Amino acid sequence: MKKTEKHQEIYRTLHQQGRRARLLTGISHLLDWDQETYMPSGASGVRAEQLELLAGITYAEKTSKKFVTPLSKLIDIPKGTLIAKDLTPEQQAAVREWRHDYIKAKALPKKFVEEFARTTSQSILAWRSAKKEDNFTHFVPYLDKIIGMARKKADYLGYDQHPYDALLDEYEPGMTTADVSKLFGNLRTDIKGILKRISSQKEVDDSFLHGKFSAEKQMEFSKDLLRQLGYPEEHGRLDLSTHPFSLAPHPTDSRITTRIHPTLLLQSILAVLHEAGHAFYEMGLPQKEYGSPLGDYISLGMHESQSRWWETRIGQSKAFWQYALPLLNKKFDKKFDRISVDAFYQAVNKVEPSLIRIEADEVTYPLHIILRFELEKGLIEGSIKIRDIPEVWNAKMKELLGVTPSNNAEGCLQDIHWSMGAFGYFPTYTLGNLYASHLFEAFEKKYPDWEKRVSVGDFKFIREWLTQVVHRHGRLYSSQELLKKITGKKISADAYLKYLDDKYTTKKR
Amino acid sequence: MKKTEKHQEIYRTLHQQGRRARLLTGISHLLDWDQETYMPSGASGVRAEQLELLAGITYAEKTSKKFVTPLSKLIDIPKGTLIAKDLTPEQQAAVREWRHDYIKAKALPKKFVEEFARTTSQSILAWRSAKKEDNFTHFVPYLDKIIGMARKKADYLGYDQHPYDALLDEYEPGMTTADVSKLFGNLRTDIKGILKRISSQKEVDDSFLHGKFSAEKQMEFSKDLLRQLGYPEEHGRLDLSTHPFSLAPHPTDSRITTRIHPTLLLQSILAVLHEAGHAFYEMGLPQKEYGSPLGDYISLGMHESQSRWWETRIGQSKAFWQYALPLLNKKFDKKFDRISVDAFYQAVNKVEPSLIRIEADEVTYPLHIILRFELEKGLIEGSIKIRDIPEVWNAKMKELLGVTPSNNAEGCLQDIHWSMGAFGYFPTYTLGNLYASHLFEAFEKKYPDWEKRVSVGDFKFIREWLTQVVHRHGRLYSSQELLKKITGKKISADAYLKYLDDKYTTKKR
Repeated sequence: MKKTEKHQEIYRTLHQQGRRARLLTGISHLLDWDQETYMPSGASGVRAEQLELLAGITYAEKTSKKFVTPLSKLIDIPKGTLIAKDLTPEQQAAVREWRHDYIKAKALPKKFVEEFARTTSQSILAWRSAKKEDNFTHFVPYLDKIIGMARKKADYLGYDQHPYDALLDEYEPGMTTADVSKLFGNLRTDIKGILKRISSQKEVDDSFLHGKFSAEKQMEFSKDLLRQLGYPEEHGRLDLSTHPFSLAPHPTDSRITTRIHPTLLLQSILAVLHEAGHAFYEMGLPQKEYGSPLGDYISLGMHESQSRWWETRIGQSKAFWQYALPLLNKKFDKKFDRISVDAFYQAVNKVEPSLIRIEADEVTYPLHIILRFELEKGLIEGSIKIRDIPEVWNAKMKELLGVTPSNNAEGCLQDIHWSMGAFGYFPTYTLGNLYASHLFEAFEKKYPDWEKRVSVGDFKFIREWLTQVVHRHGRLYSSQELLKKITGKKISADAYLKYLDDKYTTKKR
Repeated sequence: MKKTEKHQEIYRTLHQQGRRARLLTGISHLLDWDQETYMPSGASGVRAEQLELLAGITYAEKTSKKFVTPLSKLIDIPKGTLIAKDLTPEQQAAVREWRHDYIKAKALPKKFVEEFARTTSQSILAWRSAKKEDNFTHFVPYLDKIIGMARKKADYLGYDQHPYDALLDEYEPGMTTADVSKLFGNLRTDIKGILKRISSQKEVDDSFLHGKFSAEKQMEFSKDLLRQLGYPEEHGRLDLSTHPFSLAPHPTDSRITTRIHPTLLLQSILAVLHEAGHAFYEMGLPQKEYGSPLGDYISLGMHESQSRWWETRIGQSKAFWQYALPLLNKKFDKKFDRISVDAFYQAVNKVEPSLIRIEADEVTYPLHIILRFELEKGLIEGSIKIRDIPEVWNAKMKELLGVTPSNNAEGCLQDIHWSMGAFGYFPTYTLGNLYASHLFEAFEKKYPDWEKRVSVGDFKFIREWLTQVVHRHGRLYSSQELLKKITGKKISADAYLKYLDDKYTTKKR
């Protein structure tokens, strides 16, 4: 056998093993999906056990000899030097990413991974009741253990400058605490300015978005919208859950959920657009690369760029409501007969500092993230004490948004992330907005008439473009490489700030 | 450490490993459930891959050193002699059953198990289209391969007298082809006599069971019924699927499905009762024994005894309709105002030889099973050729039931079982009826007033009794041992035939 053929065969073996691990992750996703949609409530105990078992088996597959042996024939694992130089450039990239993943996985002892799964599983329950009873003290011992484990995790994974770097890298590979601090610093300053200018504007009337809206009709409207977007019924589903989410065991099975608020019309529509954006990314990944890094998403930030794209850049555009308002009006029995597209658009984009992150508008949203980033950084480095969290939280809320929670349930207990041990996750929400804005500039250059097309319900070209420039590459490029390739630029807060400034203070108002 | 403590520790290790395998089987069940209820149609490809992977991993867990090492310290695996005589009698029984399962699992090479999974997965699709197009020839090559593999499986598993013994033992441990032949011989003769006596009776009017019945109301009625039966919402679900089924990943998660026929009222009600019977068995298994044979059901026949119990012995009793008819009448807007409980009861129990097994009445049902048993036996031993199946099928239908299918879709292609490779499964349906009838005799002795209680909607005591005498024991006893313990009798066709004779020819008519 020639060397090239030999390497191709080894590569196939490696891909096959990677596919096993990916299939197992997909099975865990299905169990997660079931848990949040149809699982009988009394089955939560055994579900935790099933997920822990799968986590252990997946870990074993990812670090097994069946994986390491072929990998080490293609790349020098300790040094990172490629051995199989006759692989295609794409395959070479995949091998590098596999090595990266392997080193990350191997850095954490199996016992640690299992303990982490068990601890967070218990903590989620503790957080739920702590939030319900507005009892932060009840959550403290769990948080204490989790932050201890997060620090340990950072040590296992290693870092150059800040332990938070190691945690961030899990969700946004290549991004450092210093990078994020700089980006967030710029956002912080400029958003304050934008907010000031907005505060001098006339108050927006969004009263018609509140009222009684039949749950059934809301669901029908969402399903019609998904059809129009081209979300394929044979490869997805829309269900109800407490918090909207998307999960994709495979590009052919990419499911989303929403929640229906009986008196808030926009909540479900925007959630469906958001989750559809996530689902489209997964559906756009190349199927034949399933189980290889070339069939995987780049980073959580890039994933979020896809969801925020559809939720905010499309769903909160005037063009979208030129298309959608008449349909909404028809669905809800001419309730909006007297509302102009302009008035509706203003209402959709009403800016108002508020307490809850997931209800925040585009302008104030990054401030919620900055708060969490600063807190997480402080907690990991030890400059903030766990029992001081409520106090620090409220002070920062006051400072950043000018509002103060009346209790911890709507303050520092509002998010599930810490109970899940997901330190380093929050920044990716705002990175998603920044990526989306960069990409949108390229998109607008390519399609200067996009608003005209969207206003008549044409969405296909948007999804095709996103698949073309982002989805189909998998992890062939890093997020920064991809951004450079598409826009020629490095990540910054500029595009997002320009968008906010144009939309909220320069144009229209 | 004392020897006893040591053995207890080994037993715990063994149980822990058994629990892993059981959890994995449960995960496969969830994937099966999803596939038949909510899975997007285009995800069937990856679902087959997920299930094959899980089958392989489960097999590995069941035969791993982690399992064999502790097991071999408690029992001599080749000889079957117990080593740890200081275990409790229950633990000793569990160890014996674990050994039995291990020998069975180990007898089949992993390659064979995987090939079997792959082959049957393809064959199911082939059977679906063959049935749809009424094209038996299309199914022949698949059936040929599967029967070849079934024979090979019998050889791997080993048998004393007939290769079919090995296959039957997979579903009904301890039961032989000769046992079944004898039981079925008795049934065949006596049912013919019963049918003859019925044929001289006045024809039963069941026209009111046909008509238009709103799917929504049918579902509501089923859900109300489940509540009344005490099927707990926090540990189960009722969903729709093409064929009704029940699956239980764990006693705390025991789900059922039904199908709604727009013009046949009884179909869904009886299916719900049937599947609830299966679900109750799983819910009644002791949770702390989950993953050990003491937390597992005895046999498919015993499982079926539980489903047939609720479907036929309760759901087709007059007492049940004394309770349920007024509710049904109310639900369907007084449609049954003029129908007496007697008339309704007669209609529910109308006997009529027909072509389709799953639509058959209590009297003719065993004849459908006898046909399949004789065919399977012939196919496995080679006395019946695959291409002759349609001809043999139709001849046997004529002989046993006096009817002839007009095509193979309503003849030899009607059931999914062969495409799944489930040779040896069919007899358990009728064994279930026999077990149920034996058990019911004991039940009637204990609760001579059961009809009075059922007629006012009291079902709780029935389920409690079944849990007491059957469910809670897991596999502590074999099916024959349990039957003996409860009824003092060995299995025979007598109790069932007496019930049929009483119900259909002696009493009432």
